Amino acid sequence: MASLGEKRSVIRDIFEYAKQRASQIGAENIFDFSIGNPSVPAPESVNRVIKELVDNTDSVTLHGYTSAQGDAGVRKTICDSINKRFGTSLTPDLIYMTAGAAASLTITLNALTVPGDEFIAFTPFFPEYRVFTEAAGASLVAVPSREKDFQIDFDALEAAITKNTKGIIINSPNNPSGVVLRAETIAALADFLRGKSSQFGHVIYLISDEPYRELVYDYIEVPYVMNYYDNSIVCYSYSKALSLPGERIGYIAVCDKAENCRHLYAAVCGAGRALGYVCAPSLFQRVAAICEGETADISVYKRNRDLLYGALTSYGFCCVKPDGAFYLFVKAAESDASAFCERAKKYELLLVPAESFGCPGFVRIAYCVKTETIERALAAFKKLAQEYGLQG
Amino acid sequence: MASLGEKRSVIRDIFEYAKQRASQIGAENIFDFSIGNPSVPAPESVNRVIKELVDNTDSVTLHGYTSAQGDAGVRKTICDSINKRFGTSLTPDLIYMTAGAAASLTITLNALTVPGDEFIAFTPFFPEYRVFTEAAGASLVAVPSREKDFQIDFDALEAAITKNTKGIIINSPNNPSGVVLRAETIAALADFLRGKSSQFGHVIYLISDEPYRELVYDYIEVPYVMNYYDNSIVCYSYSKALSLPGERIGYIAVCDKAENCRHLYAAVCGAGRALGYVCAPSLFQRVAAICEGETADISVYKRNRDLLYGALTSYGFCCVKPDGAFYLFVKAAESDASAFCERAKKYELLLVPAESFGCPGFVRIAYCVKTETIERALAAFKKLAQEYGLQG
Repeated sequence: MASLGEKRSVIRDIFEYAKQRASQIGAENIFDFSIGNPSVPAPESVNRVIKELVDNTDSVTLHGYTSAQGDAGVRKTICDSINKRFGTSLTPDLIYMTAGAAASLTITLNALTVPGDEFIAFTPFFPEYRVFTEAAGASLVAVPSREKDFQIDFDALEAAITKNTKGIIINSPNNPSGVVLRAETIAALADFLRGKSSQFGHVIYLISDEPYRELVYDYIEVPYVMNYYDNSIVCYSYSKALSLPGERIGYIAVCDKAENCRHLYAAVCGAGRALGYVCAPSLFQRVAAICEGETADISVYKRNRDLLYGALTSYGFCCVKPDGAFYLFVKAAESDASAFCERAKKYELLLVPAESFGCPGFVRIAYCVKTETIERALAAFKKLAQEYGLQG
Repeated sequence: MASLGEKRSVIRDIFEYAKQRASQIGAENIFDFSIGNPSVPAPESVNRVIKELVDNTDSVTLHGYTSAQGDAGVRKTICDSINKRFGTSLTPDLIYMTAGAAASLTITLNALTVPGDEFIAFTPFFPEYRVFTEAAGASLVAVPSREKDFQIDFDALEAAITKNTKGIIINSPNNPSGVVLRAETIAALADFLRGKSSQFGHVIYLISDEPYRELVYDYIEVPYVMNYYDNSIVCYSYSKALSLPGERIGYIAVCDKAENCRHLYAAVCGAGRALGYVCAPSLFQRVAAICEGETADISVYKRNRDLLYGALTSYGFCCVKPDGAFYLFVKAAESDASAFCERAKKYELLLVPAESFGCPGFVRIAYCVKTETIERALAAFKKLAQEYGLQG
């Protein structure tokens, strides 16, 4: 545990460097693309709803414990919204309110794991998946995605799956690639998992980590996994959709068609209890329910994506166009992505080498920044491309 | 995990019974003393501060991630307050903001535990201690307190401590007895633990779970463990002091004199990360810091205690006078506390048998209710005493 606490992540190291460098040359001269922190404010309704709740709700009720699963009215609102949007037939007693995406995942992993279990994630993936999986007592098996489009490589998956595989974690839109898994990919994955569940004689769960669901551009559809695969669990967070990552609010939805879904839901409740979660923050449970369906102004992210993707590819950088989230996943212009990031630093560009995401040779560029930061950074990216002799 | 989720606690069962019974005979005719939920509103400042923060703070900052340890300014305010009140010399980088008392405990237990470890708690204790300890991979050893005053029984402790003992958990004021461990008890415990640490050749930690610290009556002093024992960790929550248990806000304070305290603090950070806590809820971190030192109107609890303790002892019931918290811990009038609670139900009195607190033969009465509920319940308690032939 101490080494987990002491070993700062790469991203955190860059964050500290950025602070130090800003004090030397001014924050406006640093182009920090390292942190995935929403840069647009929460929708106006969030703060309005907070004040209305505070003014009009009995204090003991508003700030008191909710049931461990979450306030019943909150769960009904969210359940109705899911059913309406995705054509599912969930009931509120399959929704479990959580303290955000990380809690959704750790609770789900702890609910499912027995010793010896393996979970599969497709690279690139959020590095904390490994921390959460190992802390739950399971191991994480990394399976490379198809490099050309970051959809699932089923040959690689076939080679990696074993009788110990308890579940598959997907993340769409993906951090760090921004790629959305297509409906045909999810359908093929569902077929594959049904076959393997039957072959191994036990359920293999599909865990869908969806904090970026609402952040998609060009009307791309993000398939709802429950409509493809029964033994699925959705881990959701309002952090990115409503721009309130610090408030820690999200939920777990257990598919009503999952085998023995009541028992599965009970395991989720038990894991939440064992990890000390008690209940999700009560005021923000209500805020999330009232603001369900709204988003922060994500048009900024689309503008940033279009600007940055257009410019970088025109300079000769190579990357898949992201459908969503707020990351661009770029092939480093040399084989060592860390060396590439060091060279980028000369131009005050702070990028994250993607080794910890399971993809050596790539870098992540978080474009959840002010658009003017990108505009000013383009000249630096151009010089970096020229230094490597890239051709637009 | 499913059995943890499915097995409702005794308290939860009574809660459900109360709802059902209330629909039959009216809520005003039920005397529900089962739940430890603060019954007084948060101090007026809490809602005022929420609105001021929302109106005057940049949304991205207010609702954004703080550092994993908690906002630096928040930690400084809390650290200064601890140092001022208790004469300690902590630094803000030994404070770790948490999502309440349960999170403080689970994070601390996960930070310390290696396989084979044991933690000792003194009966009566909050039943979730066992759940949290076992989920962290350790085992819980229950040691009976002295029945006459619920201070520590050092002979019993001597008999229970082993070379596998990693730590001792204390809870003062205590849930469910309301008893405060006296300065001489803490001093003797510190001496004892120094001796045993030396004997076994490894540190034994003192974990002080203090959600009820501010809820004490008659100017009773609650000793600050760091002033008695170096290898100590304080687990705090604002739930009861500020009457906001649903908002999940508290902290862990690591003693600056603990052996290798930086490493210990890093383990706390690592455990918080592994359990998926990311950061404590950001708005309420700031609310807690601004309202640090305030409390809800706890005079209600004192009035309730005096009324209930006075009446029950005058009817012949036997209990230790609680110094704090909002519980009365009463010896059942027959050896089977569950049977006693069933008999109390005839008079619509809902009490909690204390077997799950490690004290068969006792019941817990949570007096965090309206004073008029107690006033109306007294006749029922009197009849119950008469049924058992108790003498005042």
